[in-house]
Amino acid sequence: MAETEIGLGKSGRRAYRLDEVTIVPTRRTRDAELVDTSWELDAYRFDLPILASAMDSVVSPDTAIALGGMGAGGVLHLEGVWTRHDSPDEVLAELASLDDPAATRRLREIYATPVRHELVVERISQIKDAGVMACAAVTPQRTEELMPAIREAELDLLVIQGSVLSAEHVSNHDEPLNLKTYIRQLDIPVIVGGCASYQAALHLMRTGAAGVLVGVGSGSTGTTSAVVGIGMPQATAIADARAARMRHLDETGVYVHVIADGGMSTGGDIARAIVCGADAVMLGAPLAAATDAPGRGYHWGMSAPHATLPKGTRVAVEPRGSLVEVVSGPAVDMSGRTNLVGALRGAMASCGYDNLKEFQKAELMVTGLGA
Amino acid sequence: MAETEIGLGKSGRRAYRLDEVTIVPTRRTRDAELVDTSWELDAYRFDLPILASAMDSVVSPDTAIALGGMGAGGVLHLEGVWTRHDSPDEVLAELASLDDPAATRRLREIYATPVRHELVVERISQIKDAGVMACAAVTPQRTEELMPAIREAELDLLVIQGSVLSAEHVSNHDEPLNLKTYIRQLDIPVIVGGCASYQAALHLMRTGAAGVLVGVGSGSTGTTSAVVGIGMPQATAIADARAARMRHLDETGVYVHVIADGGMSTGGDIARAIVCGADAVMLGAPLAAATDAPGRGYHWGMSAPHATLPKGTRVAVEPRGSLVEVVSGPAVDMSGRTNLVGALRGAMASCGYDNLKEFQKAELMVTGLGA
Amino acid sequence: MAETEIGLGKSGRRAYRLDEVTIVPTRRTRDAELVDTSWELDAYRFDLPILASAMDSVVSPDTAIALGGMGAGGVLHLEGVWTRHDSPDEVLAELASLDDPAATRRLREIYATPVRHELVVERISQIKDAGVMACAAVTPQRTEELMPAIREAELDLLVIQGSVLSAEHVSNHDEPLNLKTYIRQLDIPVIVGGCASYQAALHLMRTGAAGVLVGVGSGSTGTTSAVVGIGMPQATAIADARAARMRHLDETGVYVHVIADGGMSTGGDIARAIVCGADAVMLGAPLAAATDAPGRGYHWGMSAPHATLPKGTRVAVEPRGSLVEVVSGPAVDMSGRTNLVGALRGAMASCGYDNLKEFQKAELMVTGLGA
Amino acid sequence: MAETEIGLGKSGRRAYRLDEVTIVPTRRTRDAELVDTSWELDAYRFDLPILASAMDSVVSPDTAIALGGMGAGGVLHLEGVWTRHDSPDEVLAELASLDDPAATRRLREIYATPVRHELVVERISQIKDAGVMACAAVTPQRTEELMPAIREAELDLLVIQGSVLSAEHVSNHDEPLNLKTYIRQLDIPVIVGGCASYQAALHLMRTGAAGVLVGVGSGSTGTTSAVVGIGMPQATAIADARAARMRHLDETGVYVHVIADGGMSTGGDIARAIVCGADAVMLGAPLAAATDAPGRGYHWGMSAPHATLPKGTRVAVEPRGSLVEVVSGPAVDMSGRTNLVGALRGAMASCGYDNLKEFQKAELMVTGLGA
Repeated sequence: MAETEIGLGKSGRRAYRLDEVTIVPTRRTRDAELVDTSWELDAYRFDLPILASAMDSVVSPDTAIALGGMGAGGVLHLEGVWTRHDSPDEVLAELASLDDPAATRRLREIYATPVRHELVVERISQIKDAGVMACAAVTPQRTEELMPAIREAELDLLVIQGSVLSAEHVSNHDEPLNLKTYIRQLDIPVIVGGCASYQAALHLMRTGAAGVLVGVGSGSTGTTSAVVGIGMPQATAIADARAARMRHLDETGVYVHVIADGGMSTGGDIARAIVCGADAVMLGAPLAAATDAPGRGYHWGMSAPHATLPKGTRVAVEPRGSLVEVVSGPAVDMSGRTNLVGALRGAMASCGYDNLKEFQKAELMVTGLGA
Repeated sequence: MAETEIGLGKSGRRAYRLDEVTIVPTRRTRDAELVDTSWELDAYRFDLPILASAMDSVVSPDTAIALGGMGAGGVLHLEGVWTRHDSPDEVLAELASLDDPAATRRLREIYATPVRHELVVERISQIKDAGVMACAAVTPQRTEELMPAIREAELDLLVIQGSVLSAEHVSNHDEPLNLKTYIRQLDIPVIVGGCASYQAALHLMRTGAAGVLVGVGSGSTGTTSAVVGIGMPQATAIADARAARMRHLDETGVYVHVIADGGMSTGGDIARAIVCGADAVMLGAPLAAATDAPGRGYHWGMSAPHATLPKGTRVAVEPRGSLVEVVSGPAVDMSGRTNLVGALRGAMASCGYDNLKEFQKAELMVTGLGA
Repeated sequence: MAETEIGLGKSGRRAYRLDEVTIVPTRRTRDAELVDTSWELDAYRFDLPILASAMDSVVSPDTAIALGGMGAGGVLHLEGVWTRHDSPDEVLAELASLDDPAATRRLREIYATPVRHELVVERISQIKDAGVMACAAVTPQRTEELMPAIREAELDLLVIQGSVLSAEHVSNHDEPLNLKTYIRQLDIPVIVGGCASYQAALHLMRTGAAGVLVGVGSGSTGTTSAVVGIGMPQATAIADARAARMRHLDETGVYVHVIADGGMSTGGDIARAIVCGADAVMLGAPLAAATDAPGRGYHWGMSAPHATLPKGTRVAVEPRGSLVEVVSGPAVDMSGRTNLVGALRGAMASCGYDNLKEFQKAELMVTGLGA
Repeated sequence: MAETEIGLGKSGRRAYRLDEVTIVPTRRTRDAELVDTSWELDAYRFDLPILASAMDSVVSPDTAIALGGMGAGGVLHLEGVWTRHDSPDEVLAELASLDDPAATRRLREIYATPVRHELVVERISQIKDAGVMACAAVTPQRTEELMPAIREAELDLLVIQGSVLSAEHVSNHDEPLNLKTYIRQLDIPVIVGGCASYQAALHLMRTGAAGVLVGVGSGSTGTTSAVVGIGMPQATAIADARAARMRHLDETGVYVHVIADGGMSTGGDIARAIVCGADAVMLGAPLAAATDAPGRGYHWGMSAPHATLPKGTRVAVEPRGSLVEVVSGPAVDMSGRTNLVGALRGAMASCGYDNLKEFQKAELMVTGLGA
């Protein structure tokens, strides 16, 4: 743990973004067809190491079903437009027609409408009825409130997510959710996050979660770093979580999955995240760029409507191709932003690795301003 | 103290700007309402760790009163337009109507008008009469001359400030102000600066000052680094002053406050400055961006009218919101430049700290080009 | 081998691009006329350490002949337009007249036309008949298929090239080319590549190749780094291959040439590549910028038409001067992109070295953003 | 001497530009009037540590006289327009009226006209007759040829200068100038350069020169780094020469002056060069920006007309103020490019140093992208 002296009274480690590292080809190569990109979380198997972010601009029940069909996972936010409105498609279409100031006002209204438990059940059921594994997210503040509906709908995988989430939250309101006791008692696998340090990842792993989301301040809708000064370059955040995973495995024999969340825009970024140590990635903006994404050309964070300190903003996204083209190809341009999985396969093949766990062993180099 | 070899005959330490560091979230979080941002200087308590710079574009008696009402401190410059002119508001309004060359000429005239002692008394009294703590600044060259008026008006907190100020100034004019003997004899708490190194901060602390301003060449109106080659990246300057504070405390038992001055533009910068070691920050440009700032859309340094080597220049500032919105919110956009204190609270809460002194212990990482 | 900690669970070495290093003048200087830029590969001697890339936008039989006449080597791609079409000049002229989308479609058609063995023989013979050494390239996938025609035409130097090529390829199609056994049995000198690490270079050297191409992801037509996350800054790639060359020489007594491929655009880049350890360089984009290049103002990679994951793209190139002016001068502007060899001679002379092998000993410095 | 590993087979030191270092204020300050900027070279004393570059766009006899009057030194090039033409002012005025391509052609003609010895004598005498110390430059190739005229005119200070100059030049033409024997026999103080490394500087010092010019590839008219790959960031070049000066002083008792040449554009750059170890600076572009500079709004290197590999180019320069304003002020803007000496005095005063030799001891910090 090499510290850099910031000044005589304070030191810190040097941290790296994903575009500051590059994967080094090895002395072996392999046909891309011989590469296995699957991973398993608890009892579930995914063909692709991709989860779609629990954001209304990224995941609707329809896109969740489409992603499930491709072998990826779409995480529906249970506190978003789909559980607050009867006709979310109309709401989203209206939103896409508004200019930015009007959209900001409308977003606040949309998320001021109450979450309805019967809609929670309905949306989850819609995904399950399509024969696809149902994944959905809640904030820790509302987890207990929404849990009866989640159980009723027999959700397959639960994500408990905040922009920064810790296993030890101090609150003076009502009793905050104690992740350490709460998760262990659930009969459904849970992913928790986000976090961005070795200690925070380790303590989230100790809650009994099946996976931990890693990433703070790297996503395209968050301006956490400028607004509050907090953030971790994603390559270092992942590599620190990898070390936490090793320690937790050593201590308990349980392998908790590290899921890189945010800071990735190309297939190359996904490959680099995995070599840093991620078992899978959670993607927002890259999937919001699909022509058939629910955001209809826009992308926004779920914390955007915060009244006094907005952390996210609605951003226009350049359309890249259909969701299938973005995820599995064929690539429609040379930007690396379509056929993300093809790119990952290509990276693994060029380095001679045949599965994700092996690929994590690939050599990285640190570069100045990209190779 | 790790030195880098610049060449075979000269070495130096690596220094960092505030935007080259990022705060790492910890394993704890906290409600933002449970965060305490107060600090105490001598007998005075401030709810917010913010002082407004002694610049005519930032602090008028009215803004000083407004800032005092919010729990911050507005430092009025006693050698500026307010103590030279009977109708400063008219002068400032005229200035705002001029183009840049005309404004440069007018600035020289404005500051060529003599400082009048009865105006010094009047302006200070105006602030005190509003029931607010009165803070004001002088240069070391004129401290003794203005002290009778300062005493008469019963100023609460005095700032003695130069762009680079040392405890040992060599002059061949009249006897220069000996800070080491002068400050100790005053019955009013004093903040001195600016300085930007461990040794300079330590010697200023030894003058008996209650606080030291840290920052040279980082402010938006100064071009010190290009003009004279001098300057210190602010993260390192603060961390060095923190070390000086520790040594001075160890030697004397007296805690001298480190006030970061310049180089901050967002709430994130303020949070980073505090984690580097600052007890409070002094802000110029971020407050000049208030729609009700006395600069009326412009910002200039108090050393701008220097005849042969101008170090500062009048710059137009983008209006961000009212002074209240800039300091305490609600945020009016997502730039991090409004609701500065809300952002600071958010940072402290995300890292689980409940007061500023604890927050100084947060972990920093050094980044390449920002997180 | 100094490792940098990316995070607690992953480390990597710091890697450098060619524009991050600069050559340090020594205490000796020399007339540029006294500088020898020749090198020998197997039985062949080149006056200039320059090979032209096996790309249709760079090398035609005519340019191969012109380059041979200058003492450089032009490598014709045997799976490109020249061996698929009877009238390649017409095809290339048509391509130059198309806009980008039409050109992308046309490129796919052009390279879908089958390679004809009699054209392979014909093109090679055309070069040999001009009295010039014939160099040509194939991919490992088609090496065995094309070898009879190559032998029939009595090719002088064979390049076996893929974007990332290893000595140990895993495939489930037919038996992949085993470079280790295949190259040794050939009676023609072979250059293989590309590779970009010490281990990969070492294993390619052990195949019996006379030279190894070094460079992955640095060329101007490849977007390997963004698309698949793989790549090596070229200065480090070359210096690693230099170490592999030393080890291979120590183990076997055989000196295998390191040929830097990609990432160079000026004479200064060529000089830096040689000081890093290259024996010669392979140039694409700098030669495609010749007014008489076959690409006619465009440049594209040979992997551009890949169906599902295009790695290269047709790019317009700024014309710089004739091929002779680009390679040997006189320089037509001050960009360093014409008279590449004159620049190299100037660099060697300024540092007092009289041949390439000596020049590899010159001192390098690492710079921030270029000198 | 800390080496960085570029790759497994090649290492190099990290080198810094002047804008990568910043001067740290100390615990002392001083009135700017109490600062002494003089230095002595052999028997001559300069009030200002500034030499004007031997370039036709910078120094004419008139500007040499003007600079001498200010206490600086103007070095006239004895192989430029002034010794080739009877009416150089007309030639320079004509040149300023031409567009770039025409100017490039005309420059070649102008410098193809032979140097006339009687003009050498005349120009030097003109400067001496004005009561100013006469400084002039020659290339090593023509030093012996021009020496009779130089002696006849009783030049005070001779500069022998090439873009890279070594004490050991290998040539196959006639016998090259042996600096080691030649300089010692002269009865006139000599400055030689440029060089940019410890060894090169040390060997130039051993020729008996009174001063060494340090800087390769940093000047604004040279594109050495891009064209030939050679160059040294100036802060490191100066600090290396400082170490050579210390060793030479230790070995011989003789103090040879280090004169930083190129890479400086503001007063801050000059201050940083001196703290790195320079005894004085040689300025080209900053003085060509004077409204009364002989280049009349243009600046070009003396090696620009090189036939096959041009290293320099005519560049338009933004006019900044009169020569007096540029050198001694008053400053006409806030760019740091006028009143260069005032800025230097300000830097020395802010750090409490009273002469140049003391100022060389000031502390430097290495910064990321400037303070």
